[in-house]
Amino acid sequence: MSRLGEFDFIRQLLAPLCRNAPGAFNLTDDAATLAPSHGCELVATVDAVVAGVHFLPDDQPGLIARKALRVNLSDLAAKGAKPLGFLMALALPSHIDDEWLKRFAAGLGRDVDAFACPLMGGDTVATPGPLMVSITAFGEVKTGHMTRRSAAMAGYVLCVSGTIGDAALGLDVAKGQYAALAADHRAYLLDRYRIPQPRLALGQALAGRDSACLDISDGLCADVGHICEQSNIGAVIEVAKLPLSEAAKSVLAKSPEAMARVLGGGDDYELAFGVPPTNLASTLALGRAAGIGVTPIGSFEAGSGVRVLDGNGVAIAVSSEGYTHR
Amino acid sequence: MSRLGEFDFIRQLLAPLCRNAPGAFNLTDDAATLAPSHGCELVATVDAVVAGVHFLPDDQPGLIARKALRVNLSDLAAKGAKPLGFLMALALPSHIDDEWLKRFAAGLGRDVDAFACPLMGGDTVATPGPLMVSITAFGEVKTGHMTRRSAAMAGYVLCVSGTIGDAALGLDVAKGQYAALAADHRAYLLDRYRIPQPRLALGQALAGRDSACLDISDGLCADVGHICEQSNIGAVIEVAKLPLSEAAKSVLAKSPEAMARVLGGGDDYELAFGVPPTNLASTLALGRAAGIGVTPIGSFEAGSGVRVLDGNGVAIAVSSEGYTHR
Repeated sequence: MSRLGEFDFIRQLLAPLCRNAPGAFNLTDDAATLAPSHGCELVATVDAVVAGVHFLPDDQPGLIARKALRVNLSDLAAKGAKPLGFLMALALPSHIDDEWLKRFAAGLGRDVDAFACPLMGGDTVATPGPLMVSITAFGEVKTGHMTRRSAAMAGYVLCVSGTIGDAALGLDVAKGQYAALAADHRAYLLDRYRIPQPRLALGQALAGRDSACLDISDGLCADVGHICEQSNIGAVIEVAKLPLSEAAKSVLAKSPEAMARVLGGGDDYELAFGVPPTNLASTLALGRAAGIGVTPIGSFEAGSGVRVLDGNGVAIAVSSEGYTHR
Repeated sequence: MSRLGEFDFIRQLLAPLCRNAPGAFNLTDDAATLAPSHGCELVATVDAVVAGVHFLPDDQPGLIARKALRVNLSDLAAKGAKPLGFLMALALPSHIDDEWLKRFAAGLGRDVDAFACPLMGGDTVATPGPLMVSITAFGEVKTGHMTRRSAAMAGYVLCVSGTIGDAALGLDVAKGQYAALAADHRAYLLDRYRIPQPRLALGQALAGRDSACLDISDGLCADVGHICEQSNIGAVIEVAKLPLSEAAKSVLAKSPEAMARVLGGGDDYELAFGVPPTNLASTLALGRAAGIGVTPIGSFEAGSGVRVLDGNGVAIAVSSEGYTHR
């Protein structure tokens, strides 16, 4: 690896990211210790990102680090967990230099503080292949209160947080599409692609209530399908109800076919969840309290699979490549 | 990836490795839950292995899986923790086929059972680079009882478990060295390189006693040096006291220069630890009870760094490439 060497990289750049968390031992031991608060259990999740697959190899190092952490925090958010810390396995190609490592650690440190989520340990290895960051994040929930995918019931209202489709359109922008789009809209969509916003406050507010939840990483339709599969029910998404950003609306005004990307594209890291209709008003209030919009976009129903209805109530078929009327 | 596809790989081959552990949710959710037993805390460690760096790309898939898990279990052993489960991030190149995946999962399942350590969750990603397996293992210890690297004191006896140097010599054998070595010795050394034996029973017996411990992965001298650094002391290793296997003795009889590999080579995954002299007899008894030899090979002393003494008490300098009299 770089001139800094593995031990100095850990000592100088990574150990400060422990922020003196007691169980991290300043990265000087073989393992970390973690203990959930009284009455709580630990929630653990792992997500790996690979250069050229999940991000562009020349993306800013700080953004790569922050996205790698945030996709895990988004899983914790969906499960209703409060972040406690994380472990990181880092596979570094030989072309990575000290400047890159410093910027990576600086970006990571920014989000360690933003989410009060210290680095607790890790492993750094050399690879002849692309850069890979594998983060295992830990959170805690009251015992038995983790929000499951499997708890949706027919009749539940399907809701999403924030706006949908921005990240997929942002990836398109990064690839040079929608050239006529205004600069501020381009910047907004790119930002939404590059830096997910884990909806921790909302997710934690949903924990322990009747709800089923996940975060949207594979795409709205696919992920609602995952809730359906685990809950043994079906769902209806009404396209006309989708919460869209001004930037996404601007794309769709000129490129209506981009609705397929909104419905099928991934990486939004918003929450998709079902709640009983009687809880809808209180759920919208939880969103307001958490500072994030919550929008009902359909419902769960008996059966299986996800039906998508256009503004006229006509079913359409969606894939990440496009959609057609059935 | 392979014809099986990511979702079927998880459902058909990985989900059974949960062995119905309650918090694993059969790999159908975004995260796992874990709770240490009453009075215990969680111990978490991550180690990643990369094809072409940590194992040979054409190694048997089952052995790759088992080694990836065992190097983590070895960390838990060194820290005195009882295994609870693990998360696995797997980066798969496109040439991996279904047969490979089946053999990988079969090997992993064998050790899931051998160590009562279920798969709790994971992430499977595609990579244009080499295969990489990153495992995060969880164990538990009585709160505050994790065995640290930093607890050695001047006067403590330096001990190791098992025999030292076998793995490094086994790697040499894999590379075609020591051609005159008897077939059973070759097989023994190769096996020691390919399949670490985490010393869980001994490590757990040491937890909560006065001791400092780690597992030998970087090499005996380097790892004893890590204990010294964290404990702010020095150490002496007496070469004549090193526990050697019959196979290693056979190598050394014809290739005495291989002692540098014994002292400097890695991957033994034996425990190296310091105990007060007054505890030595009881520590040897713990080894007998755990079914693994424990051998005193030197001591910790005031100062810093590791001194290595040959059979005549003369200091020698060691590196992974060789050793010389100072």
